[in-house]
Parts: sequence; structure tokens; C-alpha cells
Amino acid sequence: MNWVRFNRFYTEYPSIGLGLDISRMNFSDAFMDEMKPKMAEALAAMQELERGAIANPDENRMVGHYWLRDSALAPTEDLTKEIDDTLAQLESFAAEVIEGKISSPNGSFQALLIVGIGGSALGPQFVANALGDPATDKLKPYFFDNTDPDGMDRVLADIGDQLDRTLVVVISKSGGTKETRNGMLEAKAAFESKGLNFSQHAVAVTGVDSQLDKVAAAEEWITQFPMWDWVGGRTSELCAVGLLPAALQGISIRGMLQGAAACDAITRSADVSSNPAALLALMWYYAGDGKGTKDMVILPYKDRLELFSRYLQQLVMESLGKEKDLEGNVVNQGIAVYGNKGSTDQHAYVQQLREGVLNFFVTFIEVLKNRDGASMEVDPGVTTGEYLSGFYLGTREALYEKGRESISLIVEAVTPEAIGMLIALFERAVGLYASLVGINAYHQPGVEAGKKAAGAVIDLQSKIVDYLSTNPEESHTAAAIARNIGAEAQTEWVYKVCEHLSANGDKRVKRLQGDRPDNRSYQAG
Amino acid sequence: MNWVRFNRFYTEYPSIGLGLDISRMNFSDAFMDEMKPKMAEALAAMQELERGAIANPDENRMVGHYWLRDSALAPTEDLTKEIDDTLAQLESFAAEVIEGKISSPNGSFQALLIVGIGGSALGPQFVANALGDPATDKLKPYFFDNTDPDGMDRVLADIGDQLDRTLVVVISKSGGTKETRNGMLEAKAAFESKGLNFSQHAVAVTGVDSQLDKVAAAEEWITQFPMWDWVGGRTSELCAVGLLPAALQGISIRGMLQGAAACDAITRSADVSSNPAALLALMWYYAGDGKGTKDMVILPYKDRLELFSRYLQQLVMESLGKEKDLEGNVVNQGIAVYGNKGSTDQHAYVQQLREGVLNFFVTFIEVLKNRDGASMEVDPGVTTGEYLSGFYLGTREALYEKGRESISLIVEAVTPEAIGMLIALFERAVGLYASLVGINAYHQPGVEAGKKAAGAVIDLQSKIVDYLSTNPEESHTAAAIARNIGAEAQTEWVYKVCEHLSANGDKRVKRLQGDRPDNRSYQAG
Repeated sequence: MNWVRFNRFYTEYPSIGLGLDISRMNFSDAFMDEMKPKMAEALAAMQELERGAIANPDENRMVGHYWLRDSALAPTEDLTKEIDDTLAQLESFAAEVIEGKISSPNGSFQALLIVGIGGSALGPQFVANALGDPATDKLKPYFFDNTDPDGMDRVLADIGDQLDRTLVVVISKSGGTKETRNGMLEAKAAFESKGLNFSQHAVAVTGVDSQLDKVAAAEEWITQFPMWDWVGGRTSELCAVGLLPAALQGISIRGMLQGAAACDAITRSADVSSNPAALLALMWYYAGDGKGTKDMVILPYKDRLELFSRYLQQLVMESLGKEKDLEGNVVNQGIAVYGNKGSTDQHAYVQQLREGVLNFFVTFIEVLKNRDGASMEVDPGVTTGEYLSGFYLGTREALYEKGRESISLIVEAVTPEAIGMLIALFERAVGLYASLVGINAYHQPGVEAGKKAAGAVIDLQSKIVDYLSTNPEESHTAAAIARNIGAEAQTEWVYKVCEHLSANGDKRVKRLQGDRPDNRSYQAG
Repeated sequence: MNWVRFNRFYTEYPSIGLGLDISRMNFSDAFMDEMKPKMAEALAAMQELERGAIANPDENRMVGHYWLRDSALAPTEDLTKEIDDTLAQLESFAAEVIEGKISSPNGSFQALLIVGIGGSALGPQFVANALGDPATDKLKPYFFDNTDPDGMDRVLADIGDQLDRTLVVVISKSGGTKETRNGMLEAKAAFESKGLNFSQHAVAVTGVDSQLDKVAAAEEWITQFPMWDWVGGRTSELCAVGLLPAALQGISIRGMLQGAAACDAITRSADVSSNPAALLALMWYYAGDGKGTKDMVILPYKDRLELFSRYLQQLVMESLGKEKDLEGNVVNQGIAVYGNKGSTDQHAYVQQLREGVLNFFVTFIEVLKNRDGASMEVDPGVTTGEYLSGFYLGTREALYEKGRESISLIVEAVTPEAIGMLIALFERAVGLYASLVGINAYHQPGVEAGKKAAGAVIDLQSKIVDYLSTNPEESHTAAAIARNIGAEAQTEWVYKVCEHLSANGDKRVKRLQGDRPDNRSYQAG
């Protein structure tokens, strides 16, 4: 412990209820001096971005998530009005649902099924868990966040006989994300199997004129809310993507927006020493030498913040994990993020953090408020929340003793304002860090390859099934099938597809003899 | 894709329903040859361990988790009998609870509150999620897995008016884990506040004669089940710790044990090329150069396996994250583990995996079975589960193209047998890897420091409150308080404790003027 260094590098931001302690990162004054010009450039670039510059040159897009919480900043009056109008519509829609003025044919909506993935699920899940409460939620939230049929069956089982009072919000910016499209179709089938009209339960959040937008219009869903191309998926929590589910759950979305706006105001400061987003970005740079050599371990000491690390995995890793810098040099940037919550994780991997491979730095989040209401004493004069606080301080100390560095964020309580603040804080820190290391934080060129390859697998499957069905009497090895459908280079995929199809009940493909991939054979089922 | 390499390095283990594909790890034949003697030693050491050698020399303990699923292996007849008897008692207890023969004063038990942390929660949570089903669970499981009072309030809100039909299972090997003790006390208070007798709802799983064991006996809880000192917390899923909650949920614990036993039988093989645990350990060694230079990203393409990575964080990181090797040299070993599930995580961080910092290898888990029952078609001839499979293959390919290596585990379905198998597989792989790098996988010397420091914080808190209350008219800075209670070296802690106490309602401490830690003052509330 170093009281002098703590006083020097602890900063407090009362207007957003945040304390930031970087005293346990062992950077030098020389480091801070050295970084000054780069950080000044990063802050200037951020200013341009906020004014509507094309900050995502590859995709020729503006980056406008900061306008969502201060619409007056938007570069045109039309945009300002669109943001304001959408928010007003969304609020009034949520209020009418909660009041039962907009209802299902079977009565007021009680449950909420959110269908989305990635940026269209991680924010809503984080917020639902952080700010929801089983005792007071207006609509109880459920999620389809994958294309796993068994996973969807389980969610539907959990909803149970409330399906007829469930509102479905389908979220997809592009409107073409397959997992979400699949989830929507499965949800629709589930409604129809119970004789319910899906359209009377469904709302879309999507880009205007997207595929999803057209389906929603054609099927006369309850309503639609827009997503804009200047809001990226991973920074979309404070547009309709996140605000609609939160409002329907009964969470103060004005509070979230206000917390984010206040944080934006503070983190625009050119005075780095009082700009928490700039300080965070500098610490990330210091920790990983500007190359991501250290993983970011996120340890909030509060159950409600357990999903923050998953939210940050997308925000940080998708923004910063880039092959090339802005000049086209191969840099393979990024920072890996993991963590769940303290003190729970102490019992999982603090052993390694303290003693093992030193490939990380920790970001602790301390929440001062214990709970609503009074606490019992578990020891004379001591409550459970004081133990939680003690474990945070003890673990931080035990790590520091061994040269394991940490940042601490201190918030008063997990409120809508605090959640908006945390989202805005990390959004800006990510943007500034990207500038420091010279990369585009706002595109994701690496995600297309996997989707394309998946599409190729799906195409291959049809060819395999077709081929086998035209030769129903014969059995074939994977290599023979591949040869016959002109996919020899994809023989491994042919084998994998045959294995998958033959393991499932519909038996379009059945597996015959053979104990190894290269001698196993398949036949039409 | 390389069909020849795939055939060479894909192995299948029909007796445990496992396929293992290491063809996308680019090791050489020379690597395998080189590792042969080390792996032979590791397998021999494992044989000694299974026979009851003191495999955890620091703590002078046997390591017996392998006996749990094949009790005949235990080194004495008494131990064999104890394992068998406990299992039989546990099964009959769970059956009687489910049948309502053992019930609460208010009727048969409907819900299950598990109070535990670390090894006493991660396994039960993983299994409850993997094998449970809202539609068929006998008792619905809830968890207190932390000492966060707000977190506990939320769980209680979720249980709601079922509390009077809730069975509480308190799990702590040592019986002295503070988070668990606190959770037990809060649960007890919740029962009492509703006029319910906690003892008629409570069961303990703990070491004989532990603090918890004594409380349970003195308060006449329903029953107690033993934990043994030869079962480590992170390998305790297949003793009463994991089996009791699973059995109460209605999961086939015999199936889990059988899957683990069958996996143990296969992974004892001295023929490395047909021993999946040995192959896994070798791949970890290859990936991280025997030094943990690469993170282990766990990507199961199945929602039910979402918590496997959290389970593995403890098993792998607490076992392998060690400062010293067996000879006392400082080695700072370990492998960092993270991941959630595919295809969801593709939308979060596959961007970084494909393009960004190359500090990881992936372990995919493919589950062949889509769901119970038939699937609708979401495209002509294509189901949601086939998309899930396509995304796995596509992502694996997209990563491999860029030199990102991966292991694939293939299982037929998420059954009790498969879960037992996966647990046993990774337990043994961890043990073998520890031998390869020469460390003790079965102790955790690094976790005490944090607990001790937390205890010191709690002690300090009492002194601060006492000091302020003896000077109730005066206000004091943190530095002054620290000086007066003889804790100048802990001034930062004094400040943090004052901030925490003054932010909470009971107001034993209130914060007065001051805008910085060093000029802020506090007074008795």
C-alpha cells in the first residue's frame, strides 16, 4: 500500500458517481509524458468523430453512438429529430405495453422474449441482469441468443404457459443475421403450434428496409423501431436495441442515457489527468505495451455486474482485435477480456493470478452500496457486504504484493445512471486506445470469413443430401461423395456434415459400417 | 482442410461417445517423439496417484477423485465402503425428497437453494445448466455463490413464495469458507423472517467435524453428507458436492459416474495415441510451449455447455497456475481459460481471434444431436441445428486459414454420461499436463494470502468503528484514524473502509467535508 501514490493517482468524478484508482499500475511519470502527444491526437480524433466525420473509413460510415445520449450533437437537424422521435415513440410504446393498453389477444404482456445475437443480445442481457429484479420487473426477460434448437426449447420450456402473454422483440441491425432469423422462425413456429398469431406478439428493431423490416411489415407485426447505419452493433445498447428491452422491463432508460451523457461530457476533457476514459486507455497501453500482451481480467465485486465482462468481450475485442493498422501494416492488435465476478472468481483462478503466468492486468469494480435496506450482522459488527468489500481489498493486495497490477473503478451503486456511465466510459476508452495504437475501432473485417464458410457448409449439405438421394441404394465414403459433388478439397466438411446429419433423427443420411473417417460410409436414410 | 492429416489425428472412443480432433494443431512428429518419455513419466505418476500415493506432498494428502467413480480402486476397504455407502445414502435421500417422503413442514420440496462457492458451486452450476430442464426438473435449482447481499436478495426474490418448500444444501469442504457461512446465515435469516424453521430445510455437505458439520448437528438439520480430505474442491463434482444437487434435480448421477469411470478407464492407457487425456495435455503443451503462453478459449457449440468454461477456469487455472515447480524453482506456470459458447461468441470476439493478437488456441466442442424431437426447416432442407454445425465448421476454418489452431472434441449429445466423461477427461488432462511441466496440480498455496488480507480488513473495520465511536464529536481524516489505531501502513485500507461504511445506510460512519482522500474526514454516524 502506498498512500502517497494512491492520493496522486486516485481521481473522483462526482457528477457521474465514479472513482478511478490507477495507483496500482506501476507506470512512471515518464510514460505519461511520453504518451501526451499521442493522447492529444486521440482526443482530437474523437472530437472529429463526434462531429460526424467518417470515422469508419473502410465502411464509409459515421460513428454516432455518442449522439444517442445527446441528440443535439448529431451533425444534422434531421438526425437529431430522428433520435428524439424514436426515443419518444419507444418510451410511449413501452409505457402502453406495461399499462396493458397494447396487449396480446390473451391479455397484457407478462414476458419478453428477445431474439438477437452479439451486439443485439449482449447489451440487453447485461442490462437486464444488472438493473432487473425478479421482484419488480414489469415484463420478465428471456433470450434466444443462438441458433441452438435445444437451447431455444429450454427457453420456451422456461416461459411455459406464459407464451400467450409474451412479447417478442426481434433485433438485427442488418436484418439478415442467420442466428436471429432462425430464432425468429422457431419462435413463430412455437406460437403457431399453440394456435397463437405471432404477428400480434412481435416487434422488430432493425435497419429501415432490411429483410427483417420487410418481414415485419408484410406480416403486420405490432410495430418496428429503426437501427441506423451510424450505430455499430457493439455500441448499440443506447439505441432501440438496448433501450426497448430495458424500458419494457421497467428500467429507467432516461437514467441510462443521462449517465452516459454525463460520462461523455467528462471524458471529452483534454486534461488527461481528469479524464477517466483517457486514463483507462493509457493504462491499457501501459499494461500491454500497446500490443495487447496482457489480458484484461474484469472483476466486479457485485453479482449484478457479472455479465459486464461478456459485454466488454465484444466491445473491446471486436473493436481492438485487428490485423492491420490504419496504414495497412500487419499489427495483430487486440486485448483479450475475461472474468465473471468477485469474490466468486477468487475461488476459481486467483491462485493463478497471484502465482501463475503473468499475462494479465485486473480491472476491479467496487460497488459501495451493499443492498437495499439493512443487513444482519454475520459476525459482531460485520455484514455480508463488508465481507465482499474486504475480499476485494484483500485480493487486490495479495495480487499487488506479487507484482500483479490492477485498476479499480469505484461506483456508488448499480443504478441506471451508473450502467449508462460504465458503457460510455468503456466505449470512449476503446475509441481512444484504438487511436493510440492506430487502428480502426469501428469495423470488423474478420467476421465475414467465418459466416461465408458457414454458408459454404450449408450449401455443401444440400449437395450431399441430393447426391445420396439420387443413389439411394448405394453407400459412399466421404471421399467418394466429395469427389462426386466436385468438393474434393472439402472432404473433411463432407465427412463432418454426414456425421452430423446421421446423428439426428430425421435420417436423411444414415451411417453404415466403418470405424474411421476414411472407411466409414453413408447412405440416404 | 487436410483430409490426410485429419484422418491421421482424429481419434474416436466409442465407449465414451467421444471424438477428438487434433489435426488442426500444427505439431510435428518430432514434437510427439520428443514428448514420449515425459508423457510416460506423467502416466506412471498418475498410476501411483490412483493407487493412493501422497500426490499432494505439500498438504500430505492422497488425491482420490478417481475412486469416486470406481470405488474398488480406493486404497483401503474402509474407503471403498465409505464411498459406496455415501452414494447409496445420497441416492436414497434424493429419492425420498423427490417422492415427498422427506418433506418440509409445508409440503414436498419444490426448489433447491445451493449455498457454496468455488469448487462447491461451479460444478453444481455447470451440471444444473447442462443437464437440467425447466420442463422436467424435480427440484428447481438456485444458487448463493457469493457474499453479495444484493445478489442474495435477488435469488430470494426469484424463489419468491416457494421459500417454504425450498431445500437448502450448504456445501463447504472446510466448513469455514466465509462466503458460504455468510450465505447460510442470510438464508437462515430469510427463513426465520417468514416464520420458517431453517433446520427443517437444511442439509450440509462438509468435512466430518468441520465448523459447518457442528452447526448442522447442533441445530438438528435434516441430514449431513461427508466430504473427504482426499477430494479437492475443484475435483469434487462427483462426490456429494455435485451428486446431491444433481440427484435432487432429477439428473442421473449413476450416468455421470459411469461416464467418468469409462473415461478414466480409457485415459489410463499407456498408448498415448489412443489416450484422449494424454493427447489433450500434449496439445496444451505444444500450444503454449509448456509455459502457458497461449490462452485456452473454450467454445462449445451448444447452449447447455455454456458454463463449462467457468468450470474449467477453476479446474485448469487453480491446478496449473503455480509459482514454483516441484523442485522449488520459480516457474510461474498456468493456462488462462475463457469462452462462453458458439455461435454466440463469434459475434463477440471471433474478430479478434481471426485477426488480432495470437495469444490463444481454441478448444471447440461439437455436439452432434440437435434437440429432442424433430426440427422445422428454416431454409429448404436446413434446420437451426445444421446452421449451428455450419457456424462451428465455418469459424474453425476461418481461424485455421489465419494460422489460429484448434482442438475439437465431438460428443454425441449432452447426457449425464457425456458430462461425467468431460469432467474426467479434463481432470486427467490437467493432472498429466502438471506432470509434464513438473508442478503440483493439487494444492493452491496462493489463495490464502487474499483471504488473510481480507480478514485483516475486517479486523481493521472494527478498530475504525470503535475508534470513531469513542470520539463521536470529532471528525478525522483517514490518516489520523490510521495513526490512532496503529495502522499507518494501512491508511489506504482505512480510507476505503470509511468510504464503504459511510456509503451504506446504517451510518456507523459518516463522511464529512473533503474532496480528496487525503483531506476527507469521517465521524461516528
